[in-house]
Amino acid sequence: MPAKMVALFTKPEDVEAFENHYNEVHAPLVKKMPNLDRLEVTRFIGAPVGEPRYYLMAEMYFKDKATMFASAGSEEGMACGKDAFIMSNKTVHMMFATVE
Amino acid sequence: MPAKMVALFTKPEDVEAFENHYNEVHAPLVKKMPNLDRLEVTRFIGAPVGEPRYYLMAEMYFKDKATMFASAGSEEGMACGKDAFIMSNKTVHMMFATVE
Repeated sequence: MPAKMVALFTKPEDVEAFENHYNEVHAPLVKKMPNLDRLEVTRFIGAPVGEPRYYLMAEMYFKDKATMFASAGSEEGMACGKDAFIMSNKTVHMMFATVE
Repeated sequence: MPAKMVALFTKPEDVEAFENHYNEVHAPLVKKMPNLDRLEVTRFIGAPVGEPRYYLMAEMYFKDKATMFASAGSEEGMACGKDAFIMSNKTVHMMFATVE
């Protein structure tokens, strides 16, 4: 069963600075994660009720759970997590998941 | 640019009842949404820090924003949203998004 890490970012105070950091620094770090199959970047544009709770979601796909956990724990994975934490002013919420 | 609706469900009190409803009632309703390209169902199994904030995420993919909004506003889309609302005891968080 495929697996993915999901990172949820709330709307940053400075959207432009966040976007620049995401595209120029963070995404290249993500793409260095060992055995990453695919990165999908989602930007929330609205909600049927109220406002969207998040601004951006990054989904990092792996072939299975074991590969995901190994990649997250690697030097490259840790660098990536650290950068997400800094970039989001410590508000990023990261989760591990299985995908159907 | 592809688009998707994202539904985030927190952990239900009765996981088994939720799973049964999701699989037997809700997923078939989702699959009736007009012009739905794909449904991806994610189950969160952990988090690098603390506990995962959500239990399940449903992602409904469409070819573009206009198709997504039309589908969400259709009779089938409204039935689907209503069922998600009931199934989650009004806690589901739904968002519209673009996908890169």
